[in-house]
Amino acid sequence: MKSQKSIDPAALELLPKAALDGVETVWDRYEAQQPQCGFGSLGVCCRHCVQGPCRIDPFGNGPKAGICGASADVIVTRNLLRQVAGGAAAHVDHAYEAVEALELAAKGNINYSIADETKLQQIARGLGLEVSDKNKADLALEVVEAAYADLANHGSKPVQWLMVNAPKERIAVWQSLGILPRNPDREIREAMHQTTMGMDADPVNLVLSTAKQGLVDGYSGLKLATDMQDILFGTPTPVVTEANLGVLKEDCVNLIVHGHVPLLSEKIVFWAGKLQEEAILAGAKGIQVSGVCCSGNEVLMRNRIPLAANYLAQELAIITGAIDAMVVDVQCIMPSLAKVASCYHTELITTMPIVKIPGATHVPFTLEGADDTAQVIVRKAITAYGRRNSKKIHIPNYKQKIVAGFSVEAIVSALSAVNPNQPLKPLVDNIVNGNIFGVVATVGCNNVKATQDIVHVELVKELVRNNVLVVATGCSAHALAKAGFMNSEGTETYAGEGLKAVLTAIGQAAGLGTPLPPVLHMGSCVDNSRIGDLVTALAGYLNVDSASLPVAASAPEPQHEKALSIGTWAVTMGLTTHLGVVPPVLGSKAVTELLTNGLSDVIGGKFYVETDPLKAAQGLLEDIRSKRQKLGLPC
Amino acid sequence: MKSQKSIDPAALELLPKAALDGVETVWDRYEAQQPQCGFGSLGVCCRHCVQGPCRIDPFGNGPKAGICGASADVIVTRNLLRQVAGGAAAHVDHAYEAVEALELAAKGNINYSIADETKLQQIARGLGLEVSDKNKADLALEVVEAAYADLANHGSKPVQWLMVNAPKERIAVWQSLGILPRNPDREIREAMHQTTMGMDADPVNLVLSTAKQGLVDGYSGLKLATDMQDILFGTPTPVVTEANLGVLKEDCVNLIVHGHVPLLSEKIVFWAGKLQEEAILAGAKGIQVSGVCCSGNEVLMRNRIPLAANYLAQELAIITGAIDAMVVDVQCIMPSLAKVASCYHTELITTMPIVKIPGATHVPFTLEGADDTAQVIVRKAITAYGRRNSKKIHIPNYKQKIVAGFSVEAIVSALSAVNPNQPLKPLVDNIVNGNIFGVVATVGCNNVKATQDIVHVELVKELVRNNVLVVATGCSAHALAKAGFMNSEGTETYAGEGLKAVLTAIGQAAGLGTPLPPVLHMGSCVDNSRIGDLVTALAGYLNVDSASLPVAASAPEPQHEKALSIGTWAVTMGLTTHLGVVPPVLGSKAVTELLTNGLSDVIGGKFYVETDPLKAAQGLLEDIRSKRQKLGLPC
Repeated sequence: MKSQKSIDPAALELLPKAALDGVETVWDRYEAQQPQCGFGSLGVCCRHCVQGPCRIDPFGNGPKAGICGASADVIVTRNLLRQVAGGAAAHVDHAYEAVEALELAAKGNINYSIADETKLQQIARGLGLEVSDKNKADLALEVVEAAYADLANHGSKPVQWLMVNAPKERIAVWQSLGILPRNPDREIREAMHQTTMGMDADPVNLVLSTAKQGLVDGYSGLKLATDMQDILFGTPTPVVTEANLGVLKEDCVNLIVHGHVPLLSEKIVFWAGKLQEEAILAGAKGIQVSGVCCSGNEVLMRNRIPLAANYLAQELAIITGAIDAMVVDVQCIMPSLAKVASCYHTELITTMPIVKIPGATHVPFTLEGADDTAQVIVRKAITAYGRRNSKKIHIPNYKQKIVAGFSVEAIVSALSAVNPNQPLKPLVDNIVNGNIFGVVATVGCNNVKATQDIVHVELVKELVRNNVLVVATGCSAHALAKAGFMNSEGTETYAGEGLKAVLTAIGQAAGLGTPLPPVLHMGSCVDNSRIGDLVTALAGYLNVDSASLPVAASAPEPQHEKALSIGTWAVTMGLTTHLGVVPPVLGSKAVTELLTNGLSDVIGGKFYVETDPLKAAQGLLEDIRSKRQKLGLPC
Repeated sequence: MKSQKSIDPAALELLPKAALDGVETVWDRYEAQQPQCGFGSLGVCCRHCVQGPCRIDPFGNGPKAGICGASADVIVTRNLLRQVAGGAAAHVDHAYEAVEALELAAKGNINYSIADETKLQQIARGLGLEVSDKNKADLALEVVEAAYADLANHGSKPVQWLMVNAPKERIAVWQSLGILPRNPDREIREAMHQTTMGMDADPVNLVLSTAKQGLVDGYSGLKLATDMQDILFGTPTPVVTEANLGVLKEDCVNLIVHGHVPLLSEKIVFWAGKLQEEAILAGAKGIQVSGVCCSGNEVLMRNRIPLAANYLAQELAIITGAIDAMVVDVQCIMPSLAKVASCYHTELITTMPIVKIPGATHVPFTLEGADDTAQVIVRKAITAYGRRNSKKIHIPNYKQKIVAGFSVEAIVSALSAVNPNQPLKPLVDNIVNGNIFGVVATVGCNNVKATQDIVHVELVKELVRNNVLVVATGCSAHALAKAGFMNSEGTETYAGEGLKAVLTAIGQAAGLGTPLPPVLHMGSCVDNSRIGDLVTALAGYLNVDSASLPVAASAPEPQHEKALSIGTWAVTMGLTTHLGVVPPVLGSKAVTELLTNGLSDVIGGKFYVETDPLKAAQGLLEDIRSKRQKLGLPC
């Protein structure tokens, strides 16, 4: 059991208030769940048919096979494949809605614009489409058609979004392993089929199918979603704002957007701006929109909306007593929020057809009615403001200045100030000369099994001290933002000398007047595609396999099935991928060995499980060192 | 714990042999798994995120919510939705392969023919296609295009295969509930998304999505698969053969087809016929192909291949020592088979890319290479015959004569002998006058939690005694075939007077010389679509909602996720659907009440859980009686 609930001072300040207010939090429920089932934790519990549940006894003389004869190896990999398929499905569904939105926007059927014609053209060119002279709506429809084509592909040709975006060397590896996905939906369906009773009993085959799901997520989930969203809402550029619950304003209507899809939250931000007057008439000084989880990251990246809280603190945001409305879309939304909100004046608003919570207000979101829905929601927040109980309000005075908005385009733009013709050259040169020892991407969630944010923060502290450039997304980015890694003071405080010199030089060349932060916020969880693009660009520039780059990935506190599918994708990219929470696979020694070692021989990447952040940092540094060595770079 | 392992005399005779041979069976593994986890059995265990496993304490003062806040209601329904999506995915994947096969056959790219042009035309007309003058290949391609169109539908219009095949009254009900599926793959993907962490927390919404998955299975799985397979291989007509392990021939090469998809097993049957000479040269009298599970049912229905064993006896088939090769395709294949086969001379052959078993021989099946693959497999069986150990052979001398092949077309054809103009009239008249009290469809698996076959047999015995006409598919049909319900002696022995009179009259009119059997074998698990067609035809003839018909369904011994999705579809059709094994839902009283009672108010059908077959029969009779009463029919 961990010793502390969080390292976030705002969280630590609010936890006693939660107790005083009699509100149960995720930490209370975690304690109530102890001890957690050992069979499930090890991955050797199977409930895929009605003959079960079955479980394998990993120690004693109990059963070594389920009723059907499935071994621990089979049960572990079957569970893993189904979990990773769940993560991939979540992201493909997310991307799909964005494709739908672009289609309707291009047809002029909804009030969404095509904000980034340059990105649209770049994507169209990548797909091999003729761009010249076409108006952006027509071109967008061609891009939409290409996106739908992958989802309607009934042949054996691989997903086009992968083929035009993935590194060529990687495609060859995936092809040789037979894991190139065809149609993302077909692959998800097949994975579900493959994991039903009496299907695959070959753990290696199941692990390969899991890798295929990682590719489904990477290209038909993450990449497709980011591409569509950039076209619709614009490709992020650097923004300066703040992070942590201190961004809430006691004298304003506080409206939180929580979830993952920007389709609604973009509209909320717009209408919160428009309806400031109504808030003032209601006695507030205005409307403060702030973000939780990745809807927060999305509107941060494009609209400079401050970050309020990451996953584990979503309840604590309400416990401040200062949230007038929290509007949620999809994913990572604790069902407990309804109960927490009921203890305060907060209006909890669900919006999506597949996310309803008893006790919440459901305001159905449609693309066609998005503006109306957003106005209804903003006005509900204004109305709720009038119901506030001032005695219950406590906003912790913690927030950090942050610079965010680091799309690949934004990074290249900053580097172009150093070398306009070969923008990647300064980055690569500094990797080669060792000023930058390597690059690590930290991504993913909080997980209540770890002290909130500790693995993110302690891992990254050690990495940047050793001149590793860190790029971050999702709740990891939140954690690092709150901990002060996303401003130039962070560079001064945490970065090793080589890294500091590079960040300072780029900051100066780009005319920022200050160093770049040691951790670049690249966006939401679907924006992990941006990290993939960066890795692909680096590999392309150097003409090497991405598996040989001194680059690694980490999900320091993974919680969601999406984190497992994103991590799997990172492994397929050839990256050593750290997990700071143990996934449910240890019940099979063979599978654990395959995932954490054997895989690297066939696919280049592997999982690396280490719950101690300092040891994990050492492990990742060692991994980078060995890759540098192989490339003949100074170690 | 149940008192007996099986009521099948062949199984009872082989179990001591298994013990003597030192071979572990499914019953041994079941005993080793006792006691099974109570949390999992009640459905209140959640492993959908890496914070878990979580479980709800249904009795004491333990946790009432998972770490995220999910209640027992949410955990139960989330698990159920994912399981039913697994079942639907299995059947859509099956159907999809059949569509692919028809496409390639129509293009002349593979050596499969279009065997049933009449069925092709009927399906084409149903889809609104122009039929006249077109050659069958062209028409087949149009049908294929329509099938793919559902899977490529990116709009909101419902699945076409449902719209043209389902009863109009039902479509209206499903539309009002918002559960009409759009694109089957999209719905499966969405169900996976909906059940990831932080998504739906509304048990009613989750149950409605489960119902939607039932419709996905019913129309884009079962119905689509049957339609394609009938076009490719012919619509079944009555066949006479035998069932149970006594069909194995000691002096022949015994080759078993096991699994669910007839694409390979049809070829095996063909090549087993062609290669008889080679078997004779090897010292055998010939090649005897027999069937296990639904590959068995498929080749029974169309090729008069005898049934060897249903699900629970698949290991026992090998334990006879007389199986030279067992070739498996997909679903319900115990991973244990490899270990069992290794104790004998039997060659276990896997064929599909998503079904591999360490220890088995993998002979990859492709549509293009189907004939070659089938020959390789048949020859492997012939070769294995030479490795037989005669001391290990024991074939139980039990088999029953059976009549099978009752497609809807075959039933209508038999009824046409009574009334050529209105073939359904004799059936309906006899339901109205009470000679036939009602119709019950028994479907689905064996489940080791029940004495093998007992729920199927005892339930049906009581039903037919009370003049209920039974139609059966899958392992239920196997069980009833083995128990003597599929021949005219069964009518004499088991049928009530009214039913007997009707079956005798139809048998005479159809020129069979004997009564029809009291249980009509309608095929494999995907052939449950035939039962749906029959129900739809009856409802259409009477111009009433299928929910008001004196018809019910039962999965007496459900094991697979497919059984849950088929059962869910039956409920959406408005049928009371009996389950003879308790599904993992009892941990939520509210959900159990909704599934077994509340649902009937909104959708017409409901689940009915009863493990005692005699009580279940009384319950189903009561259900039929109440429907008869509402229709004003004599009770």
